[in-house]
Amino acid sequence: MSVPPGVSERDFQRAVARFESVVGAEWVFTSDEDVALYRDAYSPFVGEAQEKVASAAVAPQSAEQVQEIVRIANEFRIPLYPISTGRNLGYGGSAPVLSGSVVLDLKRMNRILEVDERNAYALVEPGVSYFDLYRHIEERGLKLWIDCPDPGWGSVIGNALDHGVGYTMNPYRDHWGAQCGLEVVTGDGELVRTGMGALPGSRTWQQFKYGFGPYLDGIFSQSNFGVVTKMGVWLMPQPEAYVDCTVEVFGHDDIVPLVDHMNYIMNTGLQNAGTNLQSPIRFAAAANPELRAALASSDPAEIAKLNAFARERGVPFYSNIFKFYGPEEVVRAQLEYTRRRLSSIPGARVRDGAFYRFPITAEQKATVRDPQDLGIPTLETFSIGARSNFAPATRGHLGFSPVIPMRGEDVIESQRVFQRVLQEFGTDVALLVFPQSYHPRTFVILCMFYVMPDAAHNDAVRRTFKRLVEVAAEHGWGEYRTHTAFMDDCAAAYSFNDHALRKLQEKIKDAVDPNGVLSAGRYGIWPQHLRKG
Amino acid sequence: MSVPPGVSERDFQRAVARFESVVGAEWVFTSDEDVALYRDAYSPFVGEAQEKVASAAVAPQSAEQVQEIVRIANEFRIPLYPISTGRNLGYGGSAPVLSGSVVLDLKRMNRILEVDERNAYALVEPGVSYFDLYRHIEERGLKLWIDCPDPGWGSVIGNALDHGVGYTMNPYRDHWGAQCGLEVVTGDGELVRTGMGALPGSRTWQQFKYGFGPYLDGIFSQSNFGVVTKMGVWLMPQPEAYVDCTVEVFGHDDIVPLVDHMNYIMNTGLQNAGTNLQSPIRFAAAANPELRAALASSDPAEIAKLNAFARERGVPFYSNIFKFYGPEEVVRAQLEYTRRRLSSIPGARVRDGAFYRFPITAEQKATVRDPQDLGIPTLETFSIGARSNFAPATRGHLGFSPVIPMRGEDVIESQRVFQRVLQEFGTDVALLVFPQSYHPRTFVILCMFYVMPDAAHNDAVRRTFKRLVEVAAEHGWGEYRTHTAFMDDCAAAYSFNDHALRKLQEKIKDAVDPNGVLSAGRYGIWPQHLRKG
Repeated sequence: MSVPPGVSERDFQRAVARFESVVGAEWVFTSDEDVALYRDAYSPFVGEAQEKVASAAVAPQSAEQVQEIVRIANEFRIPLYPISTGRNLGYGGSAPVLSGSVVLDLKRMNRILEVDERNAYALVEPGVSYFDLYRHIEERGLKLWIDCPDPGWGSVIGNALDHGVGYTMNPYRDHWGAQCGLEVVTGDGELVRTGMGALPGSRTWQQFKYGFGPYLDGIFSQSNFGVVTKMGVWLMPQPEAYVDCTVEVFGHDDIVPLVDHMNYIMNTGLQNAGTNLQSPIRFAAAANPELRAALASSDPAEIAKLNAFARERGVPFYSNIFKFYGPEEVVRAQLEYTRRRLSSIPGARVRDGAFYRFPITAEQKATVRDPQDLGIPTLETFSIGARSNFAPATRGHLGFSPVIPMRGEDVIESQRVFQRVLQEFGTDVALLVFPQSYHPRTFVILCMFYVMPDAAHNDAVRRTFKRLVEVAAEHGWGEYRTHTAFMDDCAAAYSFNDHALRKLQEKIKDAVDPNGVLSAGRYGIWPQHLRKG
Repeated sequence: MSVPPGVSERDFQRAVARFESVVGAEWVFTSDEDVALYRDAYSPFVGEAQEKVASAAVAPQSAEQVQEIVRIANEFRIPLYPISTGRNLGYGGSAPVLSGSVVLDLKRMNRILEVDERNAYALVEPGVSYFDLYRHIEERGLKLWIDCPDPGWGSVIGNALDHGVGYTMNPYRDHWGAQCGLEVVTGDGELVRTGMGALPGSRTWQQFKYGFGPYLDGIFSQSNFGVVTKMGVWLMPQPEAYVDCTVEVFGHDDIVPLVDHMNYIMNTGLQNAGTNLQSPIRFAAAANPELRAALASSDPAEIAKLNAFARERGVPFYSNIFKFYGPEEVVRAQLEYTRRRLSSIPGARVRDGAFYRFPITAEQKATVRDPQDLGIPTLETFSIGARSNFAPATRGHLGFSPVIPMRGEDVIESQRVFQRVLQEFGTDVALLVFPQSYHPRTFVILCMFYVMPDAAHNDAVRRTFKRLVEVAAEHGWGEYRTHTAFMDDCAAAYSFNDHALRKLQEKIKDAVDPNGVLSAGRYGIWPQHLRKG
């Protein structure tokens, strides 16, 4: 049996016995085989000594059991690492930041406590996946949509807490933005309800976010201050129709007006949907070293070559899907307006896309291009870099994902800057470098790495990743989320006024988790006894 | 010279001298006349011993000066009470919760640091009013709108921090929701930037809310943990057109389908605008005791009388303005859809309202019904209960404003419940009891009281108010915001698990303001040495 760092074997055995008395022996896992299931399938340290692994796991069934486990952990100073469904692949999965932590596995807390059709919300526990919530709604014939990320097996709560995103309309696709009301066990074992949930018998816990007084929900996201045991989430009433169109532009600089129009259209609420910005020429460049070199250059002659390639071959420099949800006459008017507006970019092509009236048929559902666009969870889109027939075969992927302004100039600049770093380290580690409209008002420049059972390759990935974080920070760009292996690096970049924000986060950490038992090191926040400097 | 509680006169004089050395003697106010200007013009204790008053005021010019003042306050244990423009009338104005506090007046920090047209945001200091920001934008001809509450003289930061609201589109009308990035001096004198502002040279401080790690912004709203010295706010790009219509329903129960349609229309993003729900029959009832009694009754015979009155006189039971912002063809399609959808309520009348193409002319601007609907700040709408020719002449007003679910049944029930309390205490203290769509997904039942230079009247107001808070809590309804006089009462209702939320708020308070120098008592949070029980 492994033992957490700083804990004696005797104390750990006593703690495990106490955990067993709370949840039953069958829900405390200490054998090597059982604990191995909590390894990060996408770890960039796979097979190396630095791989972060758990010492044990315990799976409670209720908030009260979570409280008892947290209290026992306080008594014996056991580091706990809560996970929801443990599917945060690319970001550390179910493995702890601090090796030897005991995973607090919340998978058994999978009750959908309420789904309200008229006011369009749900109250769920952490073990509830997007598939679970979708099925619950479908089985009851409720006219509600969920918003889900690429893989549907993840936790609704876990994804929101990690600031994950989806693909339908604002505000639903920003999963933290669609959150409303929490129940939390803080690091000292107290059970707290936030917002209107603090009012006994409240009727608006899942409907009014702010409650009364300081609005605390945010402190439990990307955090290690508490274990979220219940969360409210706003759902989208089923729209009557959906329509989309794809706008393609063929000039290197066309990204500037394209993004300006995207801003206007999103910020006036005309198109509430997420955008799908792509750079098709970058896919073409994957097989064309000359193009790839030109893409990293700012030489006008090189850019002219790219423009010629794009126009002659009809390969867009950029394309974006504009998606509209609502009554048919409204979404058609929105699409026509978008077509007119975007056609002002010389050479732009607007191509009609899908149209659906809801509910759709089973046949339509089976053939829809991106099921997540219609709030349908799937695992298909997640095949990239997984153990699939996608080439090259890998063990997983992880993404470098800094936030940049939503401006064409910043897209051009950041791609050049990151491409230079990637070239320096060997571009083959990178899959894509293109902007994603994950959140309202900013882009994330997503740069995907493969992780393989190959230490040399993974070492290059790690070094490249760390260098990208540094270079990004030098340019005023920071990560929105990261794999547990890079949390300290990313957090270090947020250093204004001698790391004043981290110091503030640490003050709160010490106040609500004085023994530092929860998720040591998560998002760069360490308990006092493990803090450096 | 008054002296703050618990501070010796000698220490206070030393502190005042130190304040003067920081900001200059002309910006420290200790004379009775000067300090009287910080009285709450709408105090429900006007002329009584319990009126909360300041002992002095100090007006810094920069975040660095705020830090120095906070440090001096820590040294001498001086209670500070930060205000922005001090215009939070109805909620305590510029007067402190703890009598004898020194007002930290941020009016001189009134710089508009940045307005970005392409990405539609501003970075402002606390002394910037809605008028200031509006004028700044107008003078430069920027195609941007602000969203403002009724009175335009308030602080953009102050209103957002108090969870204030406006009248244009989501997400702009929820002022805390439109906030992005803070600079804060915490109670221990540290200067912190939140979100992406923690990354030196960040390019997305006003564009990406969450930053990296625990998202802390919320803890500084409705709070006394820090002094906000800068805030980012999302602005709305000027839409091409505006159109509205008024839907009127004439049956007692028609509120149920009316609100269900409002929910659907808002939650599918079709109508992004705030709603203006009114109950015209309640205005008619003001002069008709029989109607008033019937409105408080659940007797079918009484309700039949009301229905007959509404239909025969053509006085709607409820009316709502649906507002649409966007390209002309889109807003017209949205309006037509709304007309069709709402016409399904038997007897409903849909009346066309205003139509504007932007920019509007000066003449149009002078005649627009509700300027705030078009992002134009004004003071006109604020005349209710102020020293105006509005009858009866008063000294001010304050609102009881609990949050209820956005459902017709809850509107009916809450109005009956509150009306019974008001009748018990004498209905003449109440101006209105109708639901406002202040935030997405909930209503606020707004019940306005006049405050007069009449101790007996004000005593009745205070007793009624406190009773309303209790009765609301018994029904699962809690306040979203309140006058400083009732903060303890309202906070006490949020008592789940032996006041676990308040205890958590107090832990954070103690961690970031260990000497409790900031805004003692605000939103029911007291520093350790003044905490009861």
